Amino acid sequence: MTKVIIIGSGNVAQHLIAAFQNSQNLGAEIELVQVFSRQTGSVSHLLDLSQITNDLDTLAEADLYIIAVSDDAIEVISSQLPFKNRLVVHTSGSVPLKVLDDNNRKGVFYPLQTFTKNKAVDFRTIPICLESENATDYQLLDKVAKSISDKIFAINSEQRKALHVAAVFVNNFTNHLYQIGQEICQEHQVPFEILNPLITETAQKIMLLSPSEAQTGPAKRNDNATIEAHEAFLSNENHLKIYKTLTQSIQENGKKL
Amino acid sequence: MTKVIIIGSGNVAQHLIAAFQNSQNLGAEIELVQVFSRQTGSVSHLLDLSQITNDLDTLAEADLYIIAVSDDAIEVISSQLPFKNRLVVHTSGSVPLKVLDDNNRKGVFYPLQTFTKNKAVDFRTIPICLESENATDYQLLDKVAKSISDKIFAINSEQRKALHVAAVFVNNFTNHLYQIGQEICQEHQVPFEILNPLITETAQKIMLLSPSEAQTGPAKRNDNATIEAHEAFLSNENHLKIYKTLTQSIQENGKKL
Repeated sequence: MTKVIIIGSGNVAQHLIAAFQNSQNLGAEIELVQVFSRQTGSVSHLLDLSQITNDLDTLAEADLYIIAVSDDAIEVISSQLPFKNRLVVHTSGSVPLKVLDDNNRKGVFYPLQTFTKNKAVDFRTIPICLESENATDYQLLDKVAKSISDKIFAINSEQRKALHVAAVFVNNFTNHLYQIGQEICQEHQVPFEILNPLITETAQKIMLLSPSEAQTGPAKRNDNATIEAHEAFLSNENHLKIYKTLTQSIQENGKKL
Repeated sequence: MTKVIIIGSGNVAQHLIAAFQNSQNLGAEIELVQVFSRQTGSVSHLLDLSQITNDLDTLAEADLYIIAVSDDAIEVISSQLPFKNRLVVHTSGSVPLKVLDDNNRKGVFYPLQTFTKNKAVDFRTIPICLESENATDYQLLDKVAKSISDKIFAINSEQRKALHVAAVFVNNFTNHLYQIGQEICQEHQVPFEILNPLITETAQKIMLLSPSEAQTGPAKRNDNATIEAHEAFLSNENHLKIYKTLTQSIQENGKKL
């Protein structure tokens, strides 16, 4: 049995706990032996109280410690671990491996997904990006990751940074465009839900076509009459600024081809 | 039987033809009697040659003529129809109803979706936005639309304009963000496919939460250290400009709450 301990109790920690419990129930040779949480109450709906500790000094022995806390807490908590030369990883997309304390062997176990409280996700479809300092540790991370996901990638810190920035564009910024769409609908008394199938299809389309092949719309076809009409229609200065910036970017792309 | 004729042979026309044929096969009381296409070959894989004409003067009599051509061709083709006082609609999100020629009764039959050649869509889930000049014509449009879709909305020209602009944000601009994500991945030798589950989840999330509730990321939590690191990481001036514009917009939104 490979023993795993999770340090943290936020969104990522909770989804990881659930994923390991699932795989354990299905017979995986990975055992989630303990969870560290400052407030034991925040994970007590997921585990027996006997498996939860709020004292780092009572951490059990394990093959892998997964620090799933906010980015700025990773360094401090890794330096407070009361043991040496064990494998300690964090789950962040934007924090380099080297931020972890030198007392232990370092690694990264980064599930690339947006986790929502109380919304279950199928962990087996979530890509997990792994990094370690040596091959033996990588093998262990690979084994643990494969127990909960079918999509494992070896990704170094520089590549992970690129992925994280790309994720900001396709997730955070895309969601913000959804919000602007909703604001425009609200202003004109149109139900935003009418756009739901379009949003779904836009996301599904790039599983078949490259984004460049999938691009449509007035900017793509240099339909300046429609662009001008849209710009005149947008009463919100901020919406207009974003419309112009993205339209120009699509048009510049077209010139490059 | 309600008789329908489609004028046009592009993406929207072809998907409409397939949808009406499907519903006809399932016993709907709507009959697609004819299609007008300048090049009869472009729809000959969908219908019998006897149902296709390339001569407006040979258009059959029907209860509804659906003009599914590019935006700038709608006005001209509606003025060339060799009959009067019949119901003629267009399928565009951005063209006002009044652009149609005064010789016939006007309406709009706007399926709000992005159509890809050779990619089937489930038409029953596609919202169709209807507009007409009088209640009797609306009833006919409603009957025809219901034969191919479960989501029918009465939307006037002003609301349709808002929907179309909102659609540019959630579809065209979102797809462009996907492309930037892909460019960042390519530059750093990371497979873009790693982001697919994130893209899917981002789109699915707003079916449950409002975009404002679903917003996450460094801009949302005012994580300036990460924002600065991302800005330093982006070597492409255009990517950087879009990163800054959208980050600022998310941060301004946060202040308003």
